[in-house]
Amino acid sequence: MDIATLSKGLDTIWVVLTAAMILLMEGGFALLEAGFVRQKNAVSIIMKVFVDITFGALIFYFIGFGFMHGKDTGGLVGHTGFMLSGDLTHIQLNITNDTFWLFQCAFVIAVISIVSGAVAERIHFKAYILYTVAMTGIIYPLAGHWVWGIGGWLQKIGMIDFAGSAVIHALGGFSALAAAIFIGPRIGKFTSDGKSNIVPPSNLPLASVGAFILWFGWFGFNAGSTLSATNVSIGHIAVTTMLSAAAGGAGCILFTMFRYKKADPPMVINGSLAGLVGITAGCSFVSDGAAIFIGLLCGIIMVLATEFLESKRVDDPVGAFAVHGVSGSIGTLAVGIFAKPELTEGVGKGYYGLVYGGGWSLLGVQALGLVIICIWGYLLTWGSLKLIKLVIPVRVSQDEELIGLDVGIHGVPAYNQDHDFLDLDQLRK
Amino acid sequence: MDIATLSKGLDTIWVVLTAAMILLMEGGFALLEAGFVRQKNAVSIIMKVFVDITFGALIFYFIGFGFMHGKDTGGLVGHTGFMLSGDLTHIQLNITNDTFWLFQCAFVIAVISIVSGAVAERIHFKAYILYTVAMTGIIYPLAGHWVWGIGGWLQKIGMIDFAGSAVIHALGGFSALAAAIFIGPRIGKFTSDGKSNIVPPSNLPLASVGAFILWFGWFGFNAGSTLSATNVSIGHIAVTTMLSAAAGGAGCILFTMFRYKKADPPMVINGSLAGLVGITAGCSFVSDGAAIFIGLLCGIIMVLATEFLESKRVDDPVGAFAVHGVSGSIGTLAVGIFAKPELTEGVGKGYYGLVYGGGWSLLGVQALGLVIICIWGYLLTWGSLKLIKLVIPVRVSQDEELIGLDVGIHGVPAYNQDHDFLDLDQLRK
Amino acid sequence: MDIATLSKGLDTIWVVLTAAMILLMEGGFALLEAGFVRQKNAVSIIMKVFVDITFGALIFYFIGFGFMHGKDTGGLVGHTGFMLSGDLTHIQLNITNDTFWLFQCAFVIAVISIVSGAVAERIHFKAYILYTVAMTGIIYPLAGHWVWGIGGWLQKIGMIDFAGSAVIHALGGFSALAAAIFIGPRIGKFTSDGKSNIVPPSNLPLASVGAFILWFGWFGFNAGSTLSATNVSIGHIAVTTMLSAAAGGAGCILFTMFRYKKADPPMVINGSLAGLVGITAGCSFVSDGAAIFIGLLCGIIMVLATEFLESKRVDDPVGAFAVHGVSGSIGTLAVGIFAKPELTEGVGKGYYGLVYGGGWSLLGVQALGLVIICIWGYLLTWGSLKLIKLVIPVRVSQDEELIGLDVGIHGVPAYNQDHDFLDLDQLRK
Repeated sequence: MDIATLSKGLDTIWVVLTAAMILLMEGGFALLEAGFVRQKNAVSIIMKVFVDITFGALIFYFIGFGFMHGKDTGGLVGHTGFMLSGDLTHIQLNITNDTFWLFQCAFVIAVISIVSGAVAERIHFKAYILYTVAMTGIIYPLAGHWVWGIGGWLQKIGMIDFAGSAVIHALGGFSALAAAIFIGPRIGKFTSDGKSNIVPPSNLPLASVGAFILWFGWFGFNAGSTLSATNVSIGHIAVTTMLSAAAGGAGCILFTMFRYKKADPPMVINGSLAGLVGITAGCSFVSDGAAIFIGLLCGIIMVLATEFLESKRVDDPVGAFAVHGVSGSIGTLAVGIFAKPELTEGVGKGYYGLVYGGGWSLLGVQALGLVIICIWGYLLTWGSLKLIKLVIPVRVSQDEELIGLDVGIHGVPAYNQDHDFLDLDQLRK
Repeated sequence: MDIATLSKGLDTIWVVLTAAMILLMEGGFALLEAGFVRQKNAVSIIMKVFVDITFGALIFYFIGFGFMHGKDTGGLVGHTGFMLSGDLTHIQLNITNDTFWLFQCAFVIAVISIVSGAVAERIHFKAYILYTVAMTGIIYPLAGHWVWGIGGWLQKIGMIDFAGSAVIHALGGFSALAAAIFIGPRIGKFTSDGKSNIVPPSNLPLASVGAFILWFGWFGFNAGSTLSATNVSIGHIAVTTMLSAAAGGAGCILFTMFRYKKADPPMVINGSLAGLVGITAGCSFVSDGAAIFIGLLCGIIMVLATEFLESKRVDDPVGAFAVHGVSGSIGTLAVGIFAKPELTEGVGKGYYGLVYGGGWSLLGVQALGLVIICIWGYLLTWGSLKLIKLVIPVRVSQDEELIGLDVGIHGVPAYNQDHDFLDLDQLRK
Repeated sequence: MDIATLSKGLDTIWVVLTAAMILLMEGGFALLEAGFVRQKNAVSIIMKVFVDITFGALIFYFIGFGFMHGKDTGGLVGHTGFMLSGDLTHIQLNITNDTFWLFQCAFVIAVISIVSGAVAERIHFKAYILYTVAMTGIIYPLAGHWVWGIGGWLQKIGMIDFAGSAVIHALGGFSALAAAIFIGPRIGKFTSDGKSNIVPPSNLPLASVGAFILWFGWFGFNAGSTLSATNVSIGHIAVTTMLSAAAGGAGCILFTMFRYKKADPPMVINGSLAGLVGITAGCSFVSDGAAIFIGLLCGIIMVLATEFLESKRVDDPVGAFAVHGVSGSIGTLAVGIFAKPELTEGVGKGYYGLVYGGGWSLLGVQALGLVIICIWGYLLTWGSLKLIKLVIPVRVSQDEELIGLDVGIHGVPAYNQDHDFLDLDQLRK
């Protein structure tokens, strides 16, 4: 046994274990979303998560990975590495390309899962499959290449996004926004007299546990992004991740107690997630104190963003935009403000945060990259859905929506009580 | 700190962490099965999972491990290592025997959990405990010894089963089939006029999340089976596992959309699992492409196998045979077809797959071993239940079955809504 | 790459991964408690778990860690390390202080979660937040310092508590007892004619899966407490943990079958947990056989303790005292009886167990430490609640309790069936 072999083994199990943790987040998304939507759509939303993890993985294997991490063309897109073949010599890691692919695959599945929540309870299943192909094959891989691919143009100008506040969450969140607007609100959510109805979450215990599983997976997401077990930042990354999530949740508890006179469960669930999203870009680069501040800010602004979207009559059933789009943006910009010089040494162009006297360079680059990525996600999602609509309907029929997608589309209700045998005809009545 | 110590530490935490992941699969089985059965039996099926993990671990400690991994007698059975004592010098691993036991213990608990689903909603609780003793003390350990024990006869003739498509899944699946036939269908499942009633899954969100937890655990199952963190195949194993599962799920989505005009949620859940089962034998030996093909095949054939069993009026409530028995068999044979020469170097007798020009040797050995193991599981399970029936009833009374095993046997319903206090007498009415 | 770097990396990922596993236990607690309480309080109990993990982490960062692991003053309390700053040179670990903090943080969150169950369905939310501050800022950190802090007085006299049967579970359990008595039983639980009503668990499948998640996390809890991946005991620790849990569950299955003529699901769930609690102190120091004995004892005595508390008309909705207080105490004392000389070499004052001829020294020290910790937890919890009561009510109003805390306090029911939109006014009727 020599030291190089040991080192490779250590890095490999680190990346495989953290990738598995990220993939478990799909269980978290499934619980979160099934808990937040109405009971009549609880299976249908989970079927979308199955689309994410199954089609997502395959499309990313055949197409997406090559565009994202293949050999660079003009800073814009990769062109090798499809099916893990072709020239990948530019990837110089201590782990195999297989292992690297697995980790990246877990990421892309997370992105598409963000969108699934925003179109819950009304998207056509086939349309969702096609959109998944677009997102995991093209939309995300290209944006990912710009920031994380070797030779990507945003990376070259110095953008920093450690584990993806921008590339994963802002992109996913703005795509979710586009999809939610494109497909329109659920029937009855907004009435013609300007009223906005509250759609009750069908199962808050499940949603909460979804959040705890996501929280667990996030340690894999952020700390695993080092791709190396000997990266000295791992402990710090895990701590900032924990503190920001805690601050997001605690901030949201206090803020909703102040604003609504009650600690609001769905908001608190999303507040913790907002804290996690917000720290994802800077987990390796900011101080503990900054992590707490970022989490707090994200937890509170998430509440306001949710209210804002509601007032604009945009129907985002699980708060995907408020959690991922908004907090992801805050987190990306926060790097430009709070990145410590000693923690960003040798990273990107060596820019660091405003508060440490780093000037506007980093903040400017972060803002530019963020805007590009958000517009990219928004436009490409809109365009994809537009194209899909030419072929098949993007939204289910009114009847299917009213009866619920579970029985309407998938032919089985999520929950069956007191029935020994299933009589679908009666359920459809 | 010397390199040997580091290496031992690295391997130890790898095996302990992956063993813990496999043990978490019991939570996955509990969710999957509780979600698939009727609400009135949701607790009773979980109590069986508790029997699996508690009695299973103890019996395997006292008896099973010695039979399986003890010093060999005639290629058939081990005879040391009961309670981890006696001569175990033939086990030459970089981890302690303790650690090795834990990993093996997680495996045996998975096997018995496969059977628990097939006898759901009607097996007598005490009979299930006794059967668990038989399975974890004798049936599985002997089969396991033949393939994985040092000196086992199937291993000696060159059978390859990396993480147990045959030893775990085909054995568990055929045992499940025997048990389901032995105990007979649930009351009302098949009517005398030849009709087959659909028993509605009580909680599909739970079942789905069970599948995601199982998927997570499978990375521990397959990649952890290296028992060494410096095994260069770990990344490849994790990737083939992911791809096969994805192909199983995606294939099942498309196939049920074609066959039933809807993506069928219970089938899709089982389709992903079928992909995981199918790749378990070959994860380390086949290419990515073969993994996708195996997963696809397993996902589709699982649907047909479920239909076939239903048409034969065999009642397997959670599809244990279709998922584990059938896909486990496919996966075992697939090794004989797709095992790459460069990946099987030094493994078994050095046989490799048919498509790479390896001839029929490996496929023949795989087929022989598979048949032996399936027959062994089927016969021993049938025999065990026959023996148990001499002492106590194997099936609950008709009254208990109709009222449900939760209230009937365990005295408490799984779900209680709108009751402040429990009145069991009323529930029994 | 040099060997010291590798070694640091290895220990770091070991501690980060096991810390994440322990934090996932909050998901386990949430499921367990939401499943055990009535449906009308299922969200409110989970909101308390969110308080545990969010406020708990922050308070421990700002205050608790310094008191617990800061530089010692008189064996009683630490005084550096608040916000991870100040002189921490006395902590000589192979991991960074960040990483160490994360692991310790996961522990403190577990302690407060133990208490949350005992006050379920009736504690005032704001009072619970304040109590969380007291527990995570002062009560636990001081007790923790005595046993685990460098220079702590109980450590100095030779007390051994590997992963916290005393410091975590007995402390948490006796605090839970104090809180349950202080706040009084739920309305209707005990009637004036001496009857004790059974409060039905609302969702036993969720509670069971909570137990499996806790079991998974416990491997992180116990084996991770080595804080070093090259500790040779890791395998042994994982095995004793597994065996004790299995014995606790199996013992409880058999004992309830004997005592109640049925395997009692809530008891079996708690029996497994009792086995886990019991082995936490001695997992590294006792033999496999002793682990099985300890688990068996804890699983059975937990049942009797639950009955005893019920007969004393103390209302502990999830059995927090019986599981954590009683089994934690048994486990702490068991170290004094079963600690093997060869496994305790160099630990504490080198005392070992009674059955190995170690005399009464270790058992005496364990008993003294245990009594101190239990009294400390009980009194400080009582005092904290007394103080809090001066400012705000500790218990919700009768109306809120009857309608349930979910709608009464948090304004949303846990489960919503068959409603497309939420009408809170109607729910409150």
